[in-house]
Amino acid sequence: MKAVSLTRGRLALVDLPTPRPAAGQLLVAVERCGICGSDLHARRHADELADALDLCGYPRYLRSGQDVVLGHEIVGRVVDHGPRRERSRLRPGTPVVTVPLVRRGRQVDGIGLSADAPGGYAEYVVVQEALTLPVPNGLPVDVAALTEPMAVAWHAVNRGEVRRKDVAVVLGCGPVGLAVIAVLKSRKVGTVIASDYSAGRRALARSLGADIVVDPAVESPWQEASAGHGFVTSMPDEYNAGIDAVESLAGLPVPWWTTWRALDATGATRPRRPVVFECVGVPGMLDGILAHAPLHSRVVVVGVCTGTDTIRPALAVNKELDLRFVVGYTPLEFRDTLHALADGALGVSGLVTGRVGLAGVADAFTALADPGTHAKLLVDPSLASHGIAGTAVR
Amino acid sequence: MKAVSLTRGRLALVDLPTPRPAAGQLLVAVERCGICGSDLHARRHADELADALDLCGYPRYLRSGQDVVLGHEIVGRVVDHGPRRERSRLRPGTPVVTVPLVRRGRQVDGIGLSADAPGGYAEYVVVQEALTLPVPNGLPVDVAALTEPMAVAWHAVNRGEVRRKDVAVVLGCGPVGLAVIAVLKSRKVGTVIASDYSAGRRALARSLGADIVVDPAVESPWQEASAGHGFVTSMPDEYNAGIDAVESLAGLPVPWWTTWRALDATGATRPRRPVVFECVGVPGMLDGILAHAPLHSRVVVVGVCTGTDTIRPALAVNKELDLRFVVGYTPLEFRDTLHALADGALGVSGLVTGRVGLAGVADAFTALADPGTHAKLLVDPSLASHGIAGTAVR
Repeated sequence: MKAVSLTRGRLALVDLPTPRPAAGQLLVAVERCGICGSDLHARRHADELADALDLCGYPRYLRSGQDVVLGHEIVGRVVDHGPRRERSRLRPGTPVVTVPLVRRGRQVDGIGLSADAPGGYAEYVVVQEALTLPVPNGLPVDVAALTEPMAVAWHAVNRGEVRRKDVAVVLGCGPVGLAVIAVLKSRKVGTVIASDYSAGRRALARSLGADIVVDPAVESPWQEASAGHGFVTSMPDEYNAGIDAVESLAGLPVPWWTTWRALDATGATRPRRPVVFECVGVPGMLDGILAHAPLHSRVVVVGVCTGTDTIRPALAVNKELDLRFVVGYTPLEFRDTLHALADGALGVSGLVTGRVGLAGVADAFTALADPGTHAKLLVDPSLASHGIAGTAVR
Repeated sequence: MKAVSLTRGRLALVDLPTPRPAAGQLLVAVERCGICGSDLHARRHADELADALDLCGYPRYLRSGQDVVLGHEIVGRVVDHGPRRERSRLRPGTPVVTVPLVRRGRQVDGIGLSADAPGGYAEYVVVQEALTLPVPNGLPVDVAALTEPMAVAWHAVNRGEVRRKDVAVVLGCGPVGLAVIAVLKSRKVGTVIASDYSAGRRALARSLGADIVVDPAVESPWQEASAGHGFVTSMPDEYNAGIDAVESLAGLPVPWWTTWRALDATGATRPRRPVVFECVGVPGMLDGILAHAPLHSRVVVVGVCTGTDTIRPALAVNKELDLRFVVGYTPLEFRDTLHALADGALGVSGLVTGRVGLAGVADAFTALADPGTHAKLLVDPSLASHGIAGTAVR
């Protein structure tokens, strides 16, 4: 079969043997495979992330010296089963999406992110049947291909515990940030503030429903976040609010410390907070958030900053910030995301900006290095041309 | 009145005018004032923390060039009121503890932590009446003096959302870590693992109820935390658990993705986690936790690391860690802590290891610089001697 192999930072169209599914696995003919930011990152900085994953007990992440077929945002059709197919529920021809993990015994590999689990930049890919779901009837293949990246955002929003009345601040409108915006609006979160230096990405943020979109070179997302939402941005304001609350109870017939419900009722004990989504993942982002976010902000860290980063913890301490780091999603969240896409509850209008054949993957990587041009590009192995079929956003 | 003034890193016994309470304030005769780790820190590194607080909107934290009377863990008796005393509920002679904040108009100062709000290393101190509570009848003054530091721990445990069945890991058994241990055991948390290099502090941790106490030079608190509690310590274990859960549903009459309750019931969607309390506050502690904590750990950062610190965010991302930074407490938490002490629900046995007069404060700071010797020392302005009245723990 034809596939794209990453070898020492170069992407080359190659012929490989069609892989064979083991027991519990399926062979899937790839119809679309999204290009993920982690694929771009893997080409240049695989070893940094591999070192971190090694410390997390996963020594099998791709490394720069290895030949790897990338691609983990996969939609395709079932072609074949491994042995013991009598347990299978997914018949040949079924359109499917998959949580990109396979295992042999207890060895688990990330599909398209390990030298031992070739990914979806290929005509065929082996997936784990237990983690593979049928695409509901009628969902366009270009939308189904977004299940995996949208599930990342779905999970991030779950971890943020965002409610409808909350204010969400999305820093960075690359594919991950845009996906977070789409999920927040599908949950009917009232105020979504998005920030990106690229005009093209800001336009996409708007089309996905962001309520306020700022260029951080010109205006601060924090100013927008603080305006009129009752967030506390300085420690003395917080202290004054607490003292005001207690003093407001001075007229009670009994002292405030004997009537905690009265103090609770002033609201002074329940701080309002924005939920911030860090979707950039470069050094300095976290410290910038610590310096500028309102007190009590809940920060969901979706962007992956590999290597080391420097922070001033005393800022986070004195602001009582929460940092919730996230990766991936559960199988249930993957299922929920797929069904939200199929129901139309989760809109992804404009997110896919183009398609390329296997021969065009290298060009697609080059195009995606310019953040303002394309959002999500999909690999379509049926396309023979080199170029990108689609319209850049700028 | 006699007081201890910090000037350019030196603590000197001085004579100062007795301060006068403004409207809404009280004059309190100090009976005890605890020496806090932040006081020790303020003597050497005030400006680092002052810079951080400045960025949080509070420009009034003490700086190294200023003359400051330290001391914010105060218990004493009401002596006088400011103007408009008809609103006062606290009569002269009432024993009181206070949230250490005063304000003039909207200007708020931390008592004993600002040049404009002299603290409790003195015969008298001015406090804010609204934030001052009567000590319940019969609570010994040495225990009441612990209200403020215990409230810090009370708040930290609240922020950690620790339940009885949880495993808590307390890193560092200085006064803050010991206070956290005491609060955890008062909440009947089943397994509290404490870690400290000092044998004396480990003995105190044991006496306050820690279930497992380790010397990190010899054994790892993480090994104890992981043994038999079902925490996931490597990513492949997590992946395998997820795939096992899904495959265990293969015998259902309908596919797992149509029956999310079935998958939920396997428990695979609700990760178990320890709650970790970082009570050291030196550079490198956070990154060590990122490297060694089990997946999904909730980390409550109580220790204040001033200046910059270096972390590897990719470790936190791939382990899905939560970092919850904490400072202080609410007035209600302060009240609850005082009453838990008075009820005997919160035990602090052994935490106070000695008392000093005002003339002995400088010696007390020297003694506290050796972590193994003393836990909490209290300033008692009625003591005339220089030495420490009490027994070192080692």
